Amino acid sequence: MRIAFIAVGLALALAGAARADEGMWLFTNPPRELLKKKYEFDADEKWLEHVRKSSVRFNSGGSGSFVSPDGLVMTNHHVGLDVLQQISKSGGKDYVKDGFYAKTNADEVKSDHAELNVLMSIDDVTKAVNGAVTADMAPDKAGAARRAARSAIEKESKDKTGLESEVVTLYQGGLYHLYRYKKYTDVRLVFAPEQQIAFYGGDPDNFEYPRFDLDMCFFRVYEDGKPAKIDHYLRWSKAGAKENEVVFVSGHPGNTDRLNTVAELEYQRDRVYPFTLQLLYRLEAAYSIYSGRSAENARRAKRDLFSIQNSRKAREGGMAGLLDPPIMDKKRADEKKLRETVANTTDLKDSAGAWDRIAQAQQALRKVSVRYNMLEGGRGFNSQLYGYARTLMRAGDERPKPNGERLREFRDSALDSLQERMMSKQPVYDDFEIVRLSNSLTFLANQLGADSPVVKKVLAGKSPNERAAQVITGTKVKDVDFRKKLYEGGKDAVEAAHDPLIEMARVIDDAARAVRKVVEDQGEVKEQAYAQIAKAKFAVEGTGTYPDATFTLRLAFGTVKGYEENSKPVPAETTIAGLYERAKEHNNQAPFDLPQRWVERKDKLDLSTPFNFICTADIIGGNSGSPVVNRAGEVVGLIFDGNIQSLVLDFAYTEEQARATSVHSRAIVEALRKVYDAGALADELTGSK
Amino acid sequence: MRIAFIAVGLALALAGAARADEGMWLFTNPPRELLKKKYEFDADEKWLEHVRKSSVRFNSGGSGSFVSPDGLVMTNHHVGLDVLQQISKSGGKDYVKDGFYAKTNADEVKSDHAELNVLMSIDDVTKAVNGAVTADMAPDKAGAARRAARSAIEKESKDKTGLESEVVTLYQGGLYHLYRYKKYTDVRLVFAPEQQIAFYGGDPDNFEYPRFDLDMCFFRVYEDGKPAKIDHYLRWSKAGAKENEVVFVSGHPGNTDRLNTVAELEYQRDRVYPFTLQLLYRLEAAYSIYSGRSAENARRAKRDLFSIQNSRKAREGGMAGLLDPPIMDKKRADEKKLRETVANTTDLKDSAGAWDRIAQAQQALRKVSVRYNMLEGGRGFNSQLYGYARTLMRAGDERPKPNGERLREFRDSALDSLQERMMSKQPVYDDFEIVRLSNSLTFLANQLGADSPVVKKVLAGKSPNERAAQVITGTKVKDVDFRKKLYEGGKDAVEAAHDPLIEMARVIDDAARAVRKVVEDQGEVKEQAYAQIAKAKFAVEGTGTYPDATFTLRLAFGTVKGYEENSKPVPAETTIAGLYERAKEHNNQAPFDLPQRWVERKDKLDLSTPFNFICTADIIGGNSGSPVVNRAGEVVGLIFDGNIQSLVLDFAYTEEQARATSVHSRAIVEALRKVYDAGALADELTGSK
Repeated sequence: MRIAFIAVGLALALAGAARADEGMWLFTNPPRELLKKKYEFDADEKWLEHVRKSSVRFNSGGSGSFVSPDGLVMTNHHVGLDVLQQISKSGGKDYVKDGFYAKTNADEVKSDHAELNVLMSIDDVTKAVNGAVTADMAPDKAGAARRAARSAIEKESKDKTGLESEVVTLYQGGLYHLYRYKKYTDVRLVFAPEQQIAFYGGDPDNFEYPRFDLDMCFFRVYEDGKPAKIDHYLRWSKAGAKENEVVFVSGHPGNTDRLNTVAELEYQRDRVYPFTLQLLYRLEAAYSIYSGRSAENARRAKRDLFSIQNSRKAREGGMAGLLDPPIMDKKRADEKKLRETVANTTDLKDSAGAWDRIAQAQQALRKVSVRYNMLEGGRGFNSQLYGYARTLMRAGDERPKPNGERLREFRDSALDSLQERMMSKQPVYDDFEIVRLSNSLTFLANQLGADSPVVKKVLAGKSPNERAAQVITGTKVKDVDFRKKLYEGGKDAVEAAHDPLIEMARVIDDAARAVRKVVEDQGEVKEQAYAQIAKAKFAVEGTGTYPDATFTLRLAFGTVKGYEENSKPVPAETTIAGLYERAKEHNNQAPFDLPQRWVERKDKLDLSTPFNFICTADIIGGNSGSPVVNRAGEVVGLIFDGNIQSLVLDFAYTEEQARATSVHSRAIVEALRKVYDAGALADELTGSK
Repeated sequence: MRIAFIAVGLALALAGAARADEGMWLFTNPPRELLKKKYEFDADEKWLEHVRKSSVRFNSGGSGSFVSPDGLVMTNHHVGLDVLQQISKSGGKDYVKDGFYAKTNADEVKSDHAELNVLMSIDDVTKAVNGAVTADMAPDKAGAARRAARSAIEKESKDKTGLESEVVTLYQGGLYHLYRYKKYTDVRLVFAPEQQIAFYGGDPDNFEYPRFDLDMCFFRVYEDGKPAKIDHYLRWSKAGAKENEVVFVSGHPGNTDRLNTVAELEYQRDRVYPFTLQLLYRLEAAYSIYSGRSAENARRAKRDLFSIQNSRKAREGGMAGLLDPPIMDKKRADEKKLRETVANTTDLKDSAGAWDRIAQAQQALRKVSVRYNMLEGGRGFNSQLYGYARTLMRAGDERPKPNGERLREFRDSALDSLQERMMSKQPVYDDFEIVRLSNSLTFLANQLGADSPVVKKVLAGKSPNERAAQVITGTKVKDVDFRKKLYEGGKDAVEAAHDPLIEMARVIDDAARAVRKVVEDQGEVKEQAYAQIAKAKFAVEGTGTYPDATFTLRLAFGTVKGYEENSKPVPAETTIAGLYERAKEHNNQAPFDLPQRWVERKDKLDLSTPFNFICTADIIGGNSGSPVVNRAGEVVGLIFDGNIQSLVLDFAYTEEQARATSVHSRAIVEALRKVYDAGALADELTGSK
């Protein structure tokens, strides 16, 4: 407990980035000199290409890697959780609770909606994107032109290469890169342990260290009905991670705000984080109550509840960081210094006003942020079925438009994936949907006012509870064939259906689009201003920096090492023996209870096997499932978490106590062989097959 | 689940109050005519006095009754819970989890801080209170004069009679009554079952029906070291509650808002309920996380977590009521009609502006409500120790002032109880205090702004986590002797101590007092306006009405009967057999698991014994622990809950589905004799001793 709350003068790594293990680096701009100097390691092009092409993005929000030539993918249990949840059915096998092992390829279980991406190429398209925008354009025209340019680049790339193509905004607008991905959609479950051991210690131990989690999951990707042949995959290290060695993490950090201006950070501190936490707390209560009613309810809500609790804890850590004076003081000092330099440098005078323009944009956004979150961001309509309904309704309106003029999620290059998601057969439960929608309609009324016209339109004279029951019970969008018919039939078919949930989405659509326009226009103002700040930073600090995380592939590095807390050393690794000790300490009570299989197999295990370990690599949410590799590019671990002290990494890197947490590669093999009788899988990993 | 969310066109009892089982009646103004007409029962003075003097108020927030001539008091387990929690210690006996039975008086366990009140007399002091206020006084002067008048009346009464004396505001300002209480502070635990059966079904079943809870607890009050001799106590009914019979509930409903103007109800809907729920959700998360870390943590936080979850569920029900159009529509229509009548009645023309004055006061309150809640209401300083610290600091300032000029909690007639609470030996745990304070200081920064001067003063350059750890670790107010010394030493001693927590309370004291003044001044405006509305209502509707609940003694009545839900009948009572069936349905998984004793004794029990039952009586939070009596004034049940549909009773009575839930008197005796081997206690209850 004290770890979480008696924190910890967060002495930041005030020394320059050059000395610290800082950075979520672009593969096109890795810290090669720094690695040579500090670790005598040269990350050459071949090494980089191999690691990059061995890395996998789970589009549901995590990372992974190829670990055999036969399409085997390693990730975290909690990254695979949405698939495990989706393939489990009421009254059938519970893959989440019981785990699974496919002894042969024929036993592997296909997921209905997983999508994996591998980054095949990177091109700088900054000029093309910025070329669409001229200085005399008002923000709305400029934003539209920029979106149109991005959509055109993406479509052209996809048409030409057949690869998924995405223009990524880096440095908040300083650079634009075109990323091309090879996409895998035939994804089959090979192995998952029981959630009980994957998420051992549950919410109480989440983001804590020392730790004892077997947070792993294995899938296999298929092409044309056969295991995909993979050229670039990671080999397995025999020794695994060792204390004081340098290691590398290749994965997809989701989002950081390190380059944000102070005005924007204050906005995060005063508005975004409090609002998000308020939402998470109420969702956690609602989902916990629903789960408490029966074991079946708990099963249905499990993945969502995990995700909410995980976000809540991460956001609380971020909130603590934003309220920690040294962090904000350093941000203020750095910004002041840069602004002074810019003001005194003739070549950079265009950039001087950028900070104020961002602050003004924040003021405008502040006025609409709640309304945007509720109506367009969907916080007022928390329902899977509502998501389908709105997408169907908008698809009818958007798809007939020219590619460049559509809402971005309907651009040509995104439509394949959109359709796959829309036609997913994942189970939807009416009772849970009613709970979710009813709760969020109440939140909508609280946030926008029960008497506001838009809320009255949504509720149509009913209470949130009644209205939710009415539209969820009445809608047909729960039927995949119905969704298919309406999607293919377009606007006329959608209107003719008179579906109550689609009609609910329709009554707020003008209001939602209006507020989205404000956000997009101000977003363009900010993007231009950030481009100017980036230009100034490159001029002053050089281009040897990394951009904020954007859920695209990055390379981090660090050392396997412990830290000190309350004057006591926290060791770099735990062992399997420690797992049994922890269970005993807690009288084997949930969430510290051991799966039966682990109780029975204890004697077979080498208890001295390292279980989890920590390193100083710079990671954040989205890195879950990333491989940890050594100089040889071999797997030594599997990232699954960070400690409490790492939760400020959203805003600033620190290596005094912040650590990334991994499953040790040796624990993976030990458990597969001795607990799960999964020798064939272990052989495939270690190349002894 | 569906009970909670697919609700229920709340068809209100639109028929006049005369026909419905509505009302939380004053004992001085009971519905005698109505009872005669509808139930052919005359609640005569003797019956009323007997029931009143048999009723007990638990000042921690519940009700109870005398049930033997030897000071035996019956209440709910969840009302006794704070005592059970307080007498349990780390590593010692856990009275909450394991329950308790004192076979002899000598075994009874004394509580350190319980206070029980019995209402001995009621006087109308409206003239005296209003006489202190003249028409030309500004609100602040008027409020001060009214407070001074109340304090003087209370002090005079206490000095004269030795009884606890409290001037109660009824009809939001329409009447003032002086209530005199006999106080008992030597309160000893006689019997409590395991919380597992007292709160069977836990949070999921809370406010649900059908129900299977043995939510009971027995205490004995002592005087001069001996069991108190009680003249008025309730006898035990042999048959217990029977379907369709009229029953009466004598207890202390805490708060209702039925007479509020529409403006004030909208304020509740738009501000008060959303704010309170936001707070409850975040507290629930924090306390659940703390509890999840270890069994000992769970024990420490149990009572607080129960209370938070209970409030959260009740408030959600109230929120649903406020967002249910028929309820607000009826409120609007009723108000419109009354205002029209007032406008057209010459004698009432003084009252015509009252509604607008209340709406204006609400506007003023809206501006300060968050600041008031955070600083003065203590929402930003959620810590037991902070409570002590602030009270010590303010006691030093307030006690030297004349009685009438003090903050109300320091008035002479309240000081005895204040001191008893201050010197309580209830355990306080530093780690839990740090969690609570750290969480609430974060909330403070979120609500008032991290850069606001008052927040900066509180945090003193530290993060909320660091600051909380610093002041909780550093304060000495956890020591009873230190508190005693400072309380007795007064202002000088308090200042000389330089205690960090007391100093934290001091830095915001001016700001807190300033905002309290605004709230009190506007409260006076509202009180005067409500007095005018009450006057108008009495003139138009007669005086045969009841005031809103004020945690003072009231009489409710109703019929034991079931209701219909989703076209299915919900029966009036459950049986002990039903308990075993429910446990089986849920595979005996928590919170539907049975205590071992109930598993073992099943064969001894008469399974057809009624367990819980429902009736139409008009109750609300605070009524927990109220006796349910029959015409003969005999105990037939013990109120412990209401169903989901009853959660709108805060705003309006309805008897279509809303029901009060009780433990059946026969289940109490059956369990005592056959599960708990507590025959002597059962004999005492039934008079067979």
